[in-house]
Amino acid sequence: MKSAEHIVKSYDEELRRLTTIVAQMGGLAESQLSGAIQSVVRRDSDLASSVVQADVKVDALQDEIDDFVVRLLALRQPMAIDLRLIVGALRIASDLERIADYAANVAKRAIALNQAPLVRPVHVVPRMGALVQAMIKDVLDAYVASDVEKAKSVWNRDEEVDEMYNSLFRELLTYMMEDARSIGICTHLLFIAKNIERIGDHATNIAELVHYTVTGQKMGGARPKGDVTSSTLPGQPDGGTA
Amino acid sequence: MKSAEHIVKSYDEELRRLTTIVAQMGGLAESQLSGAIQSVVRRDSDLASSVVQADVKVDALQDEIDDFVVRLLALRQPMAIDLRLIVGALRIASDLERIADYAANVAKRAIALNQAPLVRPVHVVPRMGALVQAMIKDVLDAYVASDVEKAKSVWNRDEEVDEMYNSLFRELLTYMMEDARSIGICTHLLFIAKNIERIGDHATNIAELVHYTVTGQKMGGARPKGDVTSSTLPGQPDGGTA
Repeated sequence: MKSAEHIVKSYDEELRRLTTIVAQMGGLAESQLSGAIQSVVRRDSDLASSVVQADVKVDALQDEIDDFVVRLLALRQPMAIDLRLIVGALRIASDLERIADYAANVAKRAIALNQAPLVRPVHVVPRMGALVQAMIKDVLDAYVASDVEKAKSVWNRDEEVDEMYNSLFRELLTYMMEDARSIGICTHLLFIAKNIERIGDHATNIAELVHYTVTGQKMGGARPKGDVTSSTLPGQPDGGTA
Repeated sequence: MKSAEHIVKSYDEELRRLTTIVAQMGGLAESQLSGAIQSVVRRDSDLASSVVQADVKVDALQDEIDDFVVRLLALRQPMAIDLRLIVGALRIASDLERIADYAANVAKRAIALNQAPLVRPVHVVPRMGALVQAMIKDVLDAYVASDVEKAKSVWNRDEEVDEMYNSLFRELLTYMMEDARSIGICTHLLFIAKNIERIGDHATNIAELVHYTVTGQKMGGARPKGDVTSSTLPGQPDGGTA
């Protein structure tokens, strides 16, 4: 009996283990983002390098989850909630991989930023970063606790991230126009801001997946979409938000 | 017997139908990208608007694939190649959704671009677009034909897209520095180029998924990664590529 336990784990145990690996991958993605933001704020290129290098660890966890999911689907015949949980894990892992990838990109750009003089608009990065980090933390809590209300609150917060992105975008354009020498640096900041904004979108995705996993229903209501910078030009009568 | 055929479709038939819906979604994503590029080249904002509006059709197809996959996993007990095929469809659909989303973003930015005077660096967009469109077409062909060699050839082409992106990036920075009034417009072009480059990455992802689905093995070799613009600054001794 004792040895059989070691060989054949219970199905429940396997499902718990799946959730644990996803939560672990989430924690790693969260710490990658935190490191990336810190490497911008403290102008710490060593930290940035270590974030870039650690991205493979996130990919390895995703591979582990993928293999686990395929094995579970093949060996068990999951139905209803279990099936949603298993397929949900696969998708959440894919969003977490994207989040970590964007964080690594922020870190890469931090290395370039740190070679140049400090520019003023950098100050928005930690604020935007803190907001998105809190979203990731909360959506992971919601995932582990199957807390639909918490997932919904994360979903609603994405608009704030988009607003911050829009305002940083305007600030960066103005800054570039005032000082052409800052264009190279500000371009990195533009992409850093866009990366953080995209991370917010993926946290929102995960919130939707938590909702679907728990309830079997898609989250109702239109998705908050606040990046207005892609459809307008600065100084246009209808725009002003660039 | 006749009526039973209508109710219980054969498993093979269902798998073929899954491949067909994915191919259909791929065709739609391809045409969305083509429309987006054309709306930039021909400065056609009506076309751009229709691309933006048609993005919901891609999302609807993804939902259909997701539901179909979950149903197949629940009703059948797919093993080995079938399981890879079914899980692969889910993932390819997710990449296609991202591709279409980036295409819609290009179209959105085209509307903004068309409100401003033409800038020279636009000429690279159709070239980069054509390259990426061919990648999507070929990877979809590889998917439908389970052609691993063709998938591999798509995978190798991503480097060329990255090189084109790097060169456009340099050109745009130079242009912005020469003429501060072009900064707003060039920023849209920067993001358009980045979106197209990301579409190439997703075509590469799909190539990897085709390889895995057919062979059960991950594609060997390091992934071609040629965007050097994120880690360097223009005019830096080690950079020059911005």
